[in-house]
Amino acid sequence: MTSSTHGALLDAVTFDDDGLVPAIAQDAETGQVLMMAYMTADTLRETLERGRMVYWSRSRQERWAKGEASGHTQTVEEVRLDCDGDTLLFKVQQEGGACHTGFHSCFYRRAEGERLVEDGKKIFDPGEVYDEA
Amino acid sequence: MTSSTHGALLDAVTFDDDGLVPAIAQDAETGQVLMMAYMTADTLRETLERGRMVYWSRSRQERWAKGEASGHTQTVEEVRLDCDGDTLLFKVQQEGGACHTGFHSCFYRRAEGERLVEDGKKIFDPGEVYDEA
Repeated sequence: MTSSTHGALLDAVTFDDDGLVPAIAQDAETGQVLMMAYMTADTLRETLERGRMVYWSRSRQERWAKGEASGHTQTVEEVRLDCDGDTLLFKVQQEGGACHTGFHSCFYRRAEGERLVEDGKKIFDPGEVYDEA
Repeated sequence: MTSSTHGALLDAVTFDDDGLVPAIAQDAETGQVLMMAYMTADTLRETLERGRMVYWSRSRQERWAKGEASGHTQTVEEVRLDCDGDTLLFKVQQEGGACHTGFHSCFYRRAEGERLVEDGKKIFDPGEVYDEA
């Protein structure tokens, strides 16, 4: 695909003062919300061109191709934009787990009365996947 | 509920430099992602205490009790926090439509090749619901 292919989407997105837009990744099969992270115009363009999620890491201030280290890639099945144009929703096919902690979804903690309980499904052992873990 | 009831959740949330945390609202019944907006510690506390979504409007810089004007309230069924503690996920029971444009979800625009197409379900006529519309 050429970069102009997704012109309508790119033109409609409003990036914040840091040049970022929040991107929600949702499991295309189950509907489970997997994670939320941020994209720059460049990583959004790359995401659309490759059909794989590429974020911008705010903590490391660098491009972050999801799954590059872990193999846990996210293949894009659908791209949606909200009414204000300032949030993206991607339906993705998740390879392995979305969360660096080993859970399928980053939202593995649920509020239950006074406690936060973990109830997500642990897919992998981070120690075996990430060198730095 | 007392404010201490949700202490564990409130303590675990990381608010950004503006004192905000992104909150994703997902339809508890269908799994459809409805919207993403922001909460302050105060509106998060109020959300948990009332069991209804209360956001912070960044454009108006004021508390925004969802559905106060439209009647389209969001009743909280489940609250989740992500691994970094900087994004909340709420499963809600949506009364009417989540979007001020009349659609059930704010993500009613889908990228399709070079175009953005509307394919959401229009639930109401904004002109009949909002005075200012």
